[in-house]
Parts: sequence; C-alpha cells; structure tokens
Amino acid sequence: MIERAEIDAAAERIAQHAVRTPVMMLEHPALPGPVEMKLELAQHTGSFKARGAFNTLLSQEVPVAGVVAASGGNHGAAVAFAARALGHAAHIFVPEMAGASKIALIRETGADLTVVPGDYANALQMARDWETRSGAMQIHAYDAPATVAGQGTLAREWEDQGLRADTVLIAVGGGGLIAGAMAWLRGARKVVAVEPETSCALHAALEAGHPVDVDVSGIAANALGARRIGDICFGLARAQGIASVLVPDAAIAQAQALLWRGCRQLPEPAGATALAALLCGAYRPEPGERVAVLVCGGNVEPDPLRP
Amino acid sequence: MIERAEIDAAAERIAQHAVRTPVMMLEHPALPGPVEMKLELAQHTGSFKARGAFNTLLSQEVPVAGVVAASGGNHGAAVAFAARALGHAAHIFVPEMAGASKIALIRETGADLTVVPGDYANALQMARDWETRSGAMQIHAYDAPATVAGQGTLAREWEDQGLRADTVLIAVGGGGLIAGAMAWLRGARKVVAVEPETSCALHAALEAGHPVDVDVSGIAANALGARRIGDICFGLARAQGIASVLVPDAAIAQAQALLWRGCRQLPEPAGATALAALLCGAYRPEPGERVAVLVCGGNVEPDPLRP
Repeated sequence: MIERAEIDAAAERIAQHAVRTPVMMLEHPALPGPVEMKLELAQHTGSFKARGAFNTLLSQEVPVAGVVAASGGNHGAAVAFAARALGHAAHIFVPEMAGASKIALIRETGADLTVVPGDYANALQMARDWETRSGAMQIHAYDAPATVAGQGTLAREWEDQGLRADTVLIAVGGGGLIAGAMAWLRGARKVVAVEPETSCALHAALEAGHPVDVDVSGIAANALGARRIGDICFGLARAQGIASVLVPDAAIAQAQALLWRGCRQLPEPAGATALAALLCGAYRPEPGERVAVLVCGGNVEPDPLRP
Repeated sequence: MIERAEIDAAAERIAQHAVRTPVMMLEHPALPGPVEMKLELAQHTGSFKARGAFNTLLSQEVPVAGVVAASGGNHGAAVAFAARALGHAAHIFVPEMAGASKIALIRETGADLTVVPGDYANALQMARDWETRSGAMQIHAYDAPATVAGQGTLAREWEDQGLRADTVLIAVGGGGLIAGAMAWLRGARKVVAVEPETSCALHAALEAGHPVDVDVSGIAANALGARRIGDICFGLARAQGIASVLVPDAAIAQAQALLWRGCRQLPEPAGATALAALLCGAYRPEPGERVAVLVCGGNVEPDPLRP
C-alpha cells in the first residue's frame, strides 16, 4: 500500500521540479453539467509522468550508469527530462507506435534513445535487458511505489487548489496515475477509471478477478496501451471497488475537439479520454453530482509546431 | 475615466457567462526568472474579447436589429458568441486578413458575416455603414467604456486568483485590454505594454503625444493590428506613464514555441507577444522584480484541428 505520508513526502521532494498545473471549470452544452478540470498537459514534457520520474530519482540512489525506462513515449520523455535536470544519464526504449512527436521530445532531452519495433511490451523487454547489462536503474512506468507516490501528488495538489468534485474521472493505461489518486483520496471522493474500448487492462482485470493480458490498439494506445494493469493499481481498485467505464475512439476524438473548441486546450487522445466518458454517456453523473476530469497529457500527434 | 466600481459591476454581470481562466507559473531557462501567467486563451471564443462583449450586451439596451461589430477576428467571434448566448442578432465584418481560423469561428456562431477586402479600417467603415442602415448597435472592439470595463475584469480576476507580480506585461493592439488593466490596477502594479515592431499604435501615439495612424503588418496583425490607439487607452497610458516596448516577429514566434514546448499552450502570435518581451530582452526585469504575462488569445492559424 502507498500511504498518504509517502505522497506528502513525494510532494515535498518534487515541489521545486514539477509544475503546479492549472485548474479551471469547463461548461459546454454537450456535457451533463459544469466540469472541474486540471490541465496536467501543462506539466513538464506534457504529461503527469514527470511527477513519478522526479519522485523516483529524488528518493533513490541513482547508479553511475544512470536510469533506464521503457515507455509508450510520455514516461520516457519524463524520465529523460528528470534525469537531465538532476544530472543523470538516461537510456529510453520506446516502441515505434510512440509516434514522431514523442520520439522527438525524448531526443531533445539528449537521452540515449532506442526505438523498438512492435509494442510497449517489446520495449520493456529491451529495457530490462539493458538494466541487466549496464547496471542502470529501471524506472517502471506505472507499477512501482515511487512512481505511484509521485503521481499521487497530482490528486493532493488538486485538493489543495480547491477541488470540489464528488467524483473524479481519470484515464487509465497501466494504472500508475489512478493508483496515486486512489492512494491519496482513500474513498473520500469517488474515483472512476476511464479506458478506451480497445485498450482496457483494468476493466479486463476487474472482470477476470486478476490482472490479465489484453490486446491494445486505437488512438490512445501509445499512452494508455498497457497490456496488463499494474499490480498496485489492481489491488487498490479492487479494495476500493472502483469501476472502469469504456469509451470508443470516436468519443475520445470528440472530447479532443471539444477541449480545443471550448477552451483552446489541445490534449492527446489519452488526455481527452476521461472527458469522453461524460460526452458519450459512459459515465452519467447523478443529479447534483459534481464531477472532475483530469486532462493528463498533451503530446498530440502531429505536433502542431512541426507541420 | 473608467472607475473601479464599473469593473466590479462588469464582473458581476459577466460572472455567469465568462470563463474564470486558469493561472500558472512558467519557468524556462530562456526566461529571466519565473513568470506568472494567466491563460486567457481558454476564454470563450479563445480570447479576452468575450469579457467586453458580454459586459456591453448586458449593460445596454440592445435594439431589435441586434448588434454589429468590426473585427480582426477575435472581437467579432466574441460579439457573435455573446449575442447568440443572449438571444440577439449579430452582423460581423472582418477583413480578409482575419484568416481562416477566425472566420470559421465566427461562422460557427451563426452570425451574419461579411468578409471585407483590405484591413481592419475597411471592415470598421462597413460596420458603421451597417449600423446607420440597420439600426443595429455598434460594439467597438476597444475604444468604448463598456468594452474597457469588461476587459478590466481580467485584471480584477487575476488579483483574486493571487497575482503576486510587481509588473504585468500585456500585448496591445487597440488598447482595450490594457486600458481595462490600467483602470483596475491604478498604479498598484507596474503595467508594461508590449507591441510588435510592425504594429505599434500605442508606441507611436506616446512618441507623438497624441494618437496617430500607423501602418500595420506582421504575424500578430490580425489581432493587434489597430491603425490607431483608442482614446481611452491613450489617456490612461499617458496619465499613468506606461511604457510600450517593441518586439520583432521572430521573438513572438519563439515565444509561441516556448509556450507549446514548455507547457502545451498554443497561443496565436498576439497571445505570445507579451512573453516575447521577456525572451528577447525588450523588457528586462530588475533583480527581484516579479513579472506576470498575459496569454491573451489562442486562435492560431492554422487551426490544428482543421489540417
């Protein structure tokens, strides 16, 4: 279990390194009511992953060989950014499906970068091989206590910014972010997991009663496409009785458009996935239920500044 | 003069209609220090103009013929949006140089739209002709008390959100926004006007001692390209001894890139113009001077969702 005190400690550690991301209300006729949002896409390297990366590097002894990470893109960029900021070497393995925007983002940090054919699982295998060969420290993208405690600072920060919602909707890939939120909130607010229909490792695990491998595809797969939910997330989700709702890619694309048209925020598909659940009715709030949506990433493809 | 009480009244009027836009800190090695930002590009129709439009429509009797506005694009979109929200007809005149994004934005509101060859002055002339013919109410883009009081709600809101800066940098076109800020702040914080080198009506007026016509061009011209500074702005700027600093288009483009790379905000050139002054050194804060930058608009061309 991740204790709240560990998230407090993480928040203190990363305070000088992570962005306190902005919050706002979104109102739109297509939504069931006003929605609180936290714009975590404004975080360093464009996603919440920087929180877990900084917390890991600042709470553990980093070997001379530095760090290694496998990533659909956002975690790798965050690890590379944090490693550079703190003076460590980094080697990042990403699958081709990470896409040009994320690969360019990692390259800009100066990290060693290996683009791996196939999907995330292949990149993870190569990262593990590198860990063994080099002695570098592996930073897991979602299923490690320091990663989860770092992501948990997001929910803590949101409450400190005046979060009022009864219910918080969070997109799930491997489950590090929602695990951090569950560990912080401990049932004080309802947490709802939102997953793409074509990439739903938590949903499948909750149905099976244990983590299972799933196929992953669709427009959010390079961020949410974990083949298996993390054990930390699964344990918390089962203990807290969290539900996972599923959304089609079309609703994700509509949510992206709504965020651009409605408030000039340009999230990647994963960053719009939680909002999609309100748009398509996968999650329907009760009358009077106040809802919040996390906009968790903005490494959209194509990068609008690289036409 | 615009009294603070008029801005208080405007804030109350528009509270249910305008977005309380988010604030955040920006830190980047290319900047002289941490910068407070207000992300006004998240406002309805993508710029601060919605504030003045709602305040005008809610404080005056609107004739059956509705409203008319001339605009480089942002003001027209805001007037059209506010008119639709409040059930009034709107006729908007925009110059061709408004560009496809802004023209599409106005069209979506269902307003009558006339695209006028040439620049803003031509559109303003046609809007005045329409006002005379139709009896519609003209909503001036910047040089009217209700417009300025509406824009002044932005500075008021920013202070309510905990603004700490000694100095606030604001991009200037016709001067409605900065006039509102000057009217609200009344010298309690330093206000610095930032204008593109190629579109600097306030700078020219301050040099000449009175408003003068200037040529306008450059990447921010469809938002900041007023040929003559508003009298309200000029009067306040002279009374308060405000300085206008000039920035080249290259610095504006760099500031746009910094905002996208640094925090996934995609402002239009006008929205990045204030930050450009810190990037290129047109404004150099004293040691310890805390600065804030307003990101005033996000109707970027091309629209990233219309490739």
